[in-house]
Amino acid sequence: MNRRKLLQLLSKGAAAGAFVKLSGGLAQGGEKFSEKAFEPMRFLGAELREYGERSEFEKGVVRYISPNLRTRHSGANFTPLDKLDGVITPSSLHFERHHGGVPTIDPAEHRLVIHGMVERPLIFTLADLKRLPSVTRTLFIECAGNGQNGYRNPPDMTLTATRSRGLVSNSSWTGVPLAILLKEAGVKEGARWLIPEGADAAAYTRSLPLEKAMEDVLVAYAQNGEALRPEQGYPLRLVVPGWEGSIMVKWLRRIQVTDMPVMAKDETSEYTDTMADGKVHAFTWIMEPQSIITYPSGLQQIQRGFHEIRGLAWSGHGRIVRVEISLDGGATWRRASLEPSPDPLSVVRFKLGWVWDGKETIIMSRAWDEKGNTQPTQEEFFARWARNNRYHYNAIQAWRIGADGKVVNGDKTLSASLAPRRLGAVGMGGCGGES
Amino acid sequence: MNRRKLLQLLSKGAAAGAFVKLSGGLAQGGEKFSEKAFEPMRFLGAELREYGERSEFEKGVVRYISPNLRTRHSGANFTPLDKLDGVITPSSLHFERHHGGVPTIDPAEHRLVIHGMVERPLIFTLADLKRLPSVTRTLFIECAGNGQNGYRNPPDMTLTATRSRGLVSNSSWTGVPLAILLKEAGVKEGARWLIPEGADAAAYTRSLPLEKAMEDVLVAYAQNGEALRPEQGYPLRLVVPGWEGSIMVKWLRRIQVTDMPVMAKDETSEYTDTMADGKVHAFTWIMEPQSIITYPSGLQQIQRGFHEIRGLAWSGHGRIVRVEISLDGGATWRRASLEPSPDPLSVVRFKLGWVWDGKETIIMSRAWDEKGNTQPTQEEFFARWARNNRYHYNAIQAWRIGADGKVVNGDKTLSASLAPRRLGAVGMGGCGGES
Repeated sequence: MNRRKLLQLLSKGAAAGAFVKLSGGLAQGGEKFSEKAFEPMRFLGAELREYGERSEFEKGVVRYISPNLRTRHSGANFTPLDKLDGVITPSSLHFERHHGGVPTIDPAEHRLVIHGMVERPLIFTLADLKRLPSVTRTLFIECAGNGQNGYRNPPDMTLTATRSRGLVSNSSWTGVPLAILLKEAGVKEGARWLIPEGADAAAYTRSLPLEKAMEDVLVAYAQNGEALRPEQGYPLRLVVPGWEGSIMVKWLRRIQVTDMPVMAKDETSEYTDTMADGKVHAFTWIMEPQSIITYPSGLQQIQRGFHEIRGLAWSGHGRIVRVEISLDGGATWRRASLEPSPDPLSVVRFKLGWVWDGKETIIMSRAWDEKGNTQPTQEEFFARWARNNRYHYNAIQAWRIGADGKVVNGDKTLSASLAPRRLGAVGMGGCGGES
Repeated sequence: MNRRKLLQLLSKGAAAGAFVKLSGGLAQGGEKFSEKAFEPMRFLGAELREYGERSEFEKGVVRYISPNLRTRHSGANFTPLDKLDGVITPSSLHFERHHGGVPTIDPAEHRLVIHGMVERPLIFTLADLKRLPSVTRTLFIECAGNGQNGYRNPPDMTLTATRSRGLVSNSSWTGVPLAILLKEAGVKEGARWLIPEGADAAAYTRSLPLEKAMEDVLVAYAQNGEALRPEQGYPLRLVVPGWEGSIMVKWLRRIQVTDMPVMAKDETSEYTDTMADGKVHAFTWIMEPQSIITYPSGLQQIQRGFHEIRGLAWSGHGRIVRVEISLDGGATWRRASLEPSPDPLSVVRFKLGWVWDGKETIIMSRAWDEKGNTQPTQEEFFARWARNNRYHYNAIQAWRIGADGKVVNGDKTLSASLAPRRLGAVGMGGCGGES
């Protein structure tokens, strides 16, 4: 059959009947083939460009900005996990979190200073740092406030996978090991802490243990192959593998070596956890195991037949070794397959084939890391952590699939003794202003 | 010291002297610290945004478009390898190659048809395909014409790493295994070939062996987490791991199952290789091992002292297991370290620390894959392939570093018996219109 004849055949409604649906319930629909499908072939397309952009038909894939924010200079937005594939987060969609807006920094003027308890205070240009030994790793960055919507009771029935866990993103980061810079500066005896500071309006400041810095912390200048994006700290940021995102100081301009943590506002008024007994737990650095089913997930609509259930899992303790999926509200669990992971501390994609029979059900996932850590149920989580908390939530997220194929939040309404209470006036803590 | 005092101290020229240079020749310069470095801290920064963009200071990092092109609708541009880090190519900088411009395709109207020697002709919507089992792999795509500048004699002294090997890019691709679709269609006895066709103005068509399709070919809909970019085939393309990029049909609209290759214009007038004995070699699919030093590389400028030599290596035959670097024009070779690779057919980053003493020298790299394949010298390459060829060049690329630190093409001028001759009027074959 020549091409003209096939085009004629395919463009006729009658001919469309010649093309059958996938057998065995594998897929449905798709048998429509209209004249419009040939339009792109009739005209010369767009020219070569120096820098590409996504299709105009994808403009709806954006970061979620909570309408509850008091200011967009100090808040967060969420990576649209329910609209992405694979495990690399496009840099334009990496979640944002800042405390004084995103500064505009001229890399030619920017410097990194290392001072304090060192033999030789040092000052680096970007060009200096780029000549030094480099490391590239694919690592997740997760806001301490990720999952904060889980503190709501009763559950938020408008929840999406994006709003549930979209304060995590995953990138390929390139930079200089901080240990090299510290060894060059010569850390003095007695030094135990680093005080990194950002060049933003908030002069964002944290305390980082020297031990972790010597182990695997990067002073990163590249993200997914190109220079860091402005909202990710251009031109320099800390990347602290497996730890809460808030310690990975962006727009990094100086690191003071000390013998004490600084107890900065950014680690006392925020990013601390109230426990069930009323005590406050400071310095929760390592992110616990998390998993989220991204398809099917909140506010999506599915049809009967075959679906590949897909989701993301990660843990700051180490490699994800097992993810289980329940298709019956937690009564039984099946092991999902895991895509090969580029790094032990990368987000991992999990998958499980499933034929939905059209009956209402609840699906959920839970992940284990190589150290044996896993995710608690809602009840287990609130037995440990206070109801008025807003950080480090990692309980299992459930999705309810209705008989009409509509997917909504499947979390339980907790009893009064466990139920978190809604706070009144609170600050922007927890990133999103969502809970 | 409080922050105000430190700011005062750092901003004074006199105080700058307190900060010393890196010891041991590790780095130089960088001791300047001007008042401008504090500017970003004085004002509230930019607000949260739904979709991010790179810094205004990075706008010079663009794909190279040859000024020799007759039309930008049928040509190629080059990934700026000498300005990128890690191994993921930002989607906006993935090299482009098209034969009739980039079509604008509405994904709601687009269909994929599988027909010909099958039991059940099938027609798929995008939604159908996205429900099916998926695979994500990090894979290089390399134009058959990559390295074509190597056919020039005498060598092009304005060559950069970008123009030498920038017709390769590396992405995380997500899609449905083509084998699943073919099994569902039911391939008839005697079928041996597939004829994929694109929905572009060129109706770009190739012949793909059924055997490879059943092995590992993907019908991809996502690239680096988001939908394919328009110039990469939005909304659907073939990804054929390890094979020449030109067979990975973009804007994929139909696949005809046949018993014979189609011998389309896109695989006869182009992408075939003339051998030294005058015969033409058709269907060179698997890309041979390549490596390119991206730093220091052509038209860059370096200073004395420590540098991390960095480059990229890949092979269509399998995992890169060894890269060697010569710092003395090929007299001796040292083994470079390799970053862990996310996939056997991903580009790999190699590195080697080096203290440049300021003397003129020639540096070069050569790669081996797990099957034992390696790169030829220029002389070895032209002993096999004709001088008037323009595809599948993978000889070792050399860079000459002058006593002034300026880096230029270090390839040799070949003797008349080996020297490739310049062609007169030629088509756009070989992608870039560069040679």
